[in-house]
Amino acid sequence: MSCNGGSDSKSNENQSESAHPSLILTQQGVKDIKANLGSIPIFDETLAATKKEIDAEIKAGFDVPTPKDYSGGYTHATHKKNYSLMQKAGVLYQILDDETYAKFVKDMLFSYAEQYPTWPAHPKTRSYARGKLFWQCLNDSNWLVYTSQAYDCIYNYLTLEERETLETELFKPFANYISKDNPQFFNRVHNHSTWGNVAVGMIALAMDDDSLLQAALYGLKDIKLAKDMKDNDGGYINPEDGKIGFFANLDEPFSPDGYYTEGPYYQRYAMYPFLIFAQALENKKPELKILEYKDRVLLKGVNALLNLTDADGDFFLLNDSQKGMSYYNSSLVSAVNIAYHFGGNNPELLSIAQKQGEVTLDDAGLAVALGIQQGKAKPFNKKSIELSDGPNGNQGGVGILRSAPMELVFKYTAHGLSHGHYDKLSYALFEDGNEVVQDYGMSRFVNIEQKGGGNYLKENTTWAKQTISHNTIVQNETSQFQGKYDIGSKHHSNGYIFSVAQDNVQVASAKEENAYPGTKLHRTMVIIKDSDYNNPYILDIMRVQTESSNQYDLPFYYLGHIMQTNFEYDKLKTPQILGTSDGYQHLYKEAIATANGKHIKLNWLLNNTFYTYSAVTSNNDEIILARIGANDPEYNLRQEPTLILRKKNTKDAVFASIIESHGTYTPVSEMALNAYSNIKNIEVVYDTSAYTAIKIETKNNTSRVFIISNENNDKEAQHSLNINNKTYTWKGCYVLTEIN
Amino acid sequence: MSCNGGSDSKSNENQSESAHPSLILTQQGVKDIKANLGSIPIFDETLAATKKEIDAEIKAGFDVPTPKDYSGGYTHATHKKNYSLMQKAGVLYQILDDETYAKFVKDMLFSYAEQYPTWPAHPKTRSYARGKLFWQCLNDSNWLVYTSQAYDCIYNYLTLEERETLETELFKPFANYISKDNPQFFNRVHNHSTWGNVAVGMIALAMDDDSLLQAALYGLKDIKLAKDMKDNDGGYINPEDGKIGFFANLDEPFSPDGYYTEGPYYQRYAMYPFLIFAQALENKKPELKILEYKDRVLLKGVNALLNLTDADGDFFLLNDSQKGMSYYNSSLVSAVNIAYHFGGNNPELLSIAQKQGEVTLDDAGLAVALGIQQGKAKPFNKKSIELSDGPNGNQGGVGILRSAPMELVFKYTAHGLSHGHYDKLSYALFEDGNEVVQDYGMSRFVNIEQKGGGNYLKENTTWAKQTISHNTIVQNETSQFQGKYDIGSKHHSNGYIFSVAQDNVQVASAKEENAYPGTKLHRTMVIIKDSDYNNPYILDIMRVQTESSNQYDLPFYYLGHIMQTNFEYDKLKTPQILGTSDGYQHLYKEAIATANGKHIKLNWLLNNTFYTYSAVTSNNDEIILARIGANDPEYNLRQEPTLILRKKNTKDAVFASIIESHGTYTPVSEMALNAYSNIKNIEVVYDTSAYTAIKIETKNNTSRVFIISNENNDKEAQHSLNINNKTYTWKGCYVLTEIN
Repeated sequence: MSCNGGSDSKSNENQSESAHPSLILTQQGVKDIKANLGSIPIFDETLAATKKEIDAEIKAGFDVPTPKDYSGGYTHATHKKNYSLMQKAGVLYQILDDETYAKFVKDMLFSYAEQYPTWPAHPKTRSYARGKLFWQCLNDSNWLVYTSQAYDCIYNYLTLEERETLETELFKPFANYISKDNPQFFNRVHNHSTWGNVAVGMIALAMDDDSLLQAALYGLKDIKLAKDMKDNDGGYINPEDGKIGFFANLDEPFSPDGYYTEGPYYQRYAMYPFLIFAQALENKKPELKILEYKDRVLLKGVNALLNLTDADGDFFLLNDSQKGMSYYNSSLVSAVNIAYHFGGNNPELLSIAQKQGEVTLDDAGLAVALGIQQGKAKPFNKKSIELSDGPNGNQGGVGILRSAPMELVFKYTAHGLSHGHYDKLSYALFEDGNEVVQDYGMSRFVNIEQKGGGNYLKENTTWAKQTISHNTIVQNETSQFQGKYDIGSKHHSNGYIFSVAQDNVQVASAKEENAYPGTKLHRTMVIIKDSDYNNPYILDIMRVQTESSNQYDLPFYYLGHIMQTNFEYDKLKTPQILGTSDGYQHLYKEAIATANGKHIKLNWLLNNTFYTYSAVTSNNDEIILARIGANDPEYNLRQEPTLILRKKNTKDAVFASIIESHGTYTPVSEMALNAYSNIKNIEVVYDTSAYTAIKIETKNNTSRVFIISNENNDKEAQHSLNINNKTYTWKGCYVLTEIN
Repeated sequence: MSCNGGSDSKSNENQSESAHPSLILTQQGVKDIKANLGSIPIFDETLAATKKEIDAEIKAGFDVPTPKDYSGGYTHATHKKNYSLMQKAGVLYQILDDETYAKFVKDMLFSYAEQYPTWPAHPKTRSYARGKLFWQCLNDSNWLVYTSQAYDCIYNYLTLEERETLETELFKPFANYISKDNPQFFNRVHNHSTWGNVAVGMIALAMDDDSLLQAALYGLKDIKLAKDMKDNDGGYINPEDGKIGFFANLDEPFSPDGYYTEGPYYQRYAMYPFLIFAQALENKKPELKILEYKDRVLLKGVNALLNLTDADGDFFLLNDSQKGMSYYNSSLVSAVNIAYHFGGNNPELLSIAQKQGEVTLDDAGLAVALGIQQGKAKPFNKKSIELSDGPNGNQGGVGILRSAPMELVFKYTAHGLSHGHYDKLSYALFEDGNEVVQDYGMSRFVNIEQKGGGNYLKENTTWAKQTISHNTIVQNETSQFQGKYDIGSKHHSNGYIFSVAQDNVQVASAKEENAYPGTKLHRTMVIIKDSDYNNPYILDIMRVQTESSNQYDLPFYYLGHIMQTNFEYDKLKTPQILGTSDGYQHLYKEAIATANGKHIKLNWLLNNTFYTYSAVTSNNDEIILARIGANDPEYNLRQEPTLILRKKNTKDAVFASIIESHGTYTPVSEMALNAYSNIKNIEVVYDTSAYTAIKIETKNNTSRVFIISNENNDKEAQHSLNINNKTYTWKGCYVLTEIN
């Protein structure tokens, strides 16, 4: 225990005490909260629920066990629970002025302070950066981010001596361990490092330790890491441009639209440290103007995240993501509250907070509670939106087309760091919050210890990241960019058209020219609303141009039960494995068919809704009905179906198809309504390097032609094209027109 | 058109008119309804919804197409819609006094009267009894049951001449066609015949035609049918005891407890004609005291049906049944309303009516609406209940054990006529309205034309009816009763214990001695509540006694995703077909393991709930992880998993296991709670012909022994038994006791 001279320390103490709490709660905030208690329902309810939870935990007593387990195991779960309890108890102490809560935090902190110095690196060795409490520094950082807030809240309750003990025995060694002792974890641009930087930054602010704060903001200088060092996900550790620290983590992964390159699942995870630290800096170092940084990128990030959810609030699955994660996650509660409080009081955020049903117990949460109480909430209207990727917004992006009840997510981003999947120009389709054409997501059961300790499963690499597990083109049974991070992370797709002003025809189009050298991919997704039918339908045009002859597979991951096809297939006696690598080894071939050049139809039932996929084929295209689950010795994979359309020995190709949600089934009345597709025919009527035209005939005896200009996306350009002796003229990069 | 003398006809007409409506609506009822309109919310809402629906249909106009399609096709759906519209329009005419509705019914009836005589038997030939409007007489009968009500409602609106036209050209030929012309349909004990009898009976009451009424009530006399005639489901047509007509259909399939031998799915279907005709008879022929018949069996039937539902109101799956059918079906709205009105105003029925959210627009519906409006509704509390099977209640039954949130359905019934499955002593388990250990149900997509015209699929016979598709014993890979209706329909299981007075240990036990000649099966299912754990768990003891050596398979149809097993299994490179017949040809073997004599554990996740199956094994028992879907050329089957425990070359055997629902997963917080089983060990510690004892050790360091007396089920008998040097004494046929 270090000790300064008596009087100096005393004066420091007073100065210091006057400044707490100051991270997330402020002294003024506490005053305002106390003045409003009892008249702000959502805040009062959150407070009551938190009090109830913490009172029960205080009664039950806590445990600070010797670290031992992976995620999902007892010691992992307990240390995770502990930091959450301390953060909440600290807040309760401030708001309720009850020392029981402060004592609880203090006792737990001292238990950690006593044991921490005696703990070696965590006994589980799987991580490239082992923590001490947890198997990865990442989780240790989580601990410190929350615990810093608890420390700030009970700072004044502690004596100087107690604070010195905690800081010397616990906080400073802890901060050093996750930074200096693990620079491969701390000095990166990655969500792990964000947590690391913020953990160090938060405790620095709580302790008023400027040298730690500098490390947090700007990284550790003069650290040399091996060039080829990789993390557990295969991501490179050593940043080529030498950018490190919190600002670098703000610069790099966020696009100007607030899209985080790893995807929404990890953005959700990263938003908490970004925003909680921003909030603390805003309170404690307002001169940094952190929320103004990069044209308010953090606030834009919250808006982007909310737009990256389906009708139920579940995040779209881009790259590594677990299904079911949504804006009900606590980090989004913080994000929404902070964005509201510090970002100009957007009333639409209040309706999200109402759905979340809770607020943060701090100044931001108070602002939200007051806004709701004052009736300011407005619906958060999610519209079609394009979110650019890349630090400067020029590395492709995500296009989201919405036309109720359908939502389509189209991916043409950069790789997404180590959590990226090899699926350029893939998409997923949702109806009313239910996934209809799925993205598999990641192969991991987070915190379910039975499944590989709750960590990434090996099938995440061999299956979930591979191209064939997504709704996009695979050339010659090889994943895009050869499934290699070194290659994939160097490239990005490019948006070509994003045009959503007309409600009845919305277009997202993008190109990918590096996934397969020498092959150009150009995909266009269109949502078309035909007033004769209940639901809009989706037109999908995937063009492939190349010099050489290749095999192209386009999988279609429908979810549900096959009702009928308009083609005859041969079901194999027993399923056969489809391929040997690149994810194909995980697919069973169940049935095969040969196309006759007409369009094929797959009619299926999901959630009592009838869907049909109608796809143009060429003569002798192969149709493979397959199922996930081969080479899966521990039942890690979900055994779900796909239809693969395969073109062999082909140079240029166009895959054109339509997806409809056209009918319903009611089990209670046993009524089937509109069980069949409304598409009479779909045909590619024109295809050159300049233009592609698709003709769609519907059962209401209407024919439409959709034409896209493949090389000129100028909105003002005039086009004229003769197809089958009919001349079409239009302005702009595409047209949808009725014909007779 | 027949014609009586002028004056006579006139007086008949007046007499007749004064008596309409009199089937479902009565003149007094109409008066009462009118007096209460506007002050009985659930009735007013149903009326408004019905008016809205019918107004739209009147505006759109109707079609009476030439019959052509199977279920799900246009002509089928249209004729089905037409009878429903007529019935509703008739009611609206009576209640609203608006002739628009009467005219709509009249016009449609005349369109039918014009075409009906010209229509031959339906062109689709699959049925043993083809209708004219529909492919089966069954659906024609549906039509007439509803249309009779419409006719009754507009009777007074029509002129004598119009009535004579309709009766001569349409109703009488229609009634004759489904009776005299199709005695193989009409003269049976079967739900088909119930509909036929009731159709003829309803139109007889509407027309005051006593000779038709006699045929409806007592069947057609002097009809000889071939002895070996079978229907499409393989059921025998010619009743051995010569019982025919409505009364016979009441006598035979209903047990004294109101259980209908085909199972709840068909009971739901049959209840509508039973009750609608009973209601009409009650109004028009009160001297028959139809609702008093067989000790109020029809009213008991409503109670039985409501008890045969899970927490969501979905019917349990016994025999042929489609998932998702529930007490929200319109026939249950009628049933609940009629049972309330005519059965003593049980206030618990009102809470079901509230959930249904609608009432019938008649005297019964008015009574329910008034009851609800007067605040009389009480919760319908479903408790553990045993429902006997067989006309006299001595042909086994169904045992339902309930201990919230778990519900277990245990089948030890008679065969269930032609809709019966070969699964004596099988069970299914539900948690909070979700099926956890499933009964497959039937292989049919009712009214989904894409799937075999919406009719039974061939896999219903080859898979769904076979023993291996259920959670019960299969001996030597052969279905019970050789899967033969002739054999199975002669036998029934026998209940042995049904004891549910103690909340913490509820027992249902039953025996089956005919499924495999020479082999005695005895299964005991116990729900045990341990106050240390949130949910009760299920103990399952299946004893097999035989002279010869056999192979026994006990499948376990868990729904969900395998998390972990405590045994090592070898996943096959590709799935192999498990067997050649009796349903085995539809199972893929995916993985195999050999038991080491300890108990095996299967831990799985379903709906974010963790479950574990812990089963006692003998050394070298085989464990097969299998999946439905082999030999399924048209994807008619759902590809769901099972675990089969196989004992080879075995004489006597005991299969003992425990099923627990022990934990939860929350995707939004990624928290896994109690992910592992609480069962430390399960062991058969005693097994003789007299007693079987199972020892259960739980993780809270408690050991319990459950002992059952296998041959004496006297509740008063005293028992004393020494197991491992400890003496147990108790009174009654079983005991559950803690040991140290």
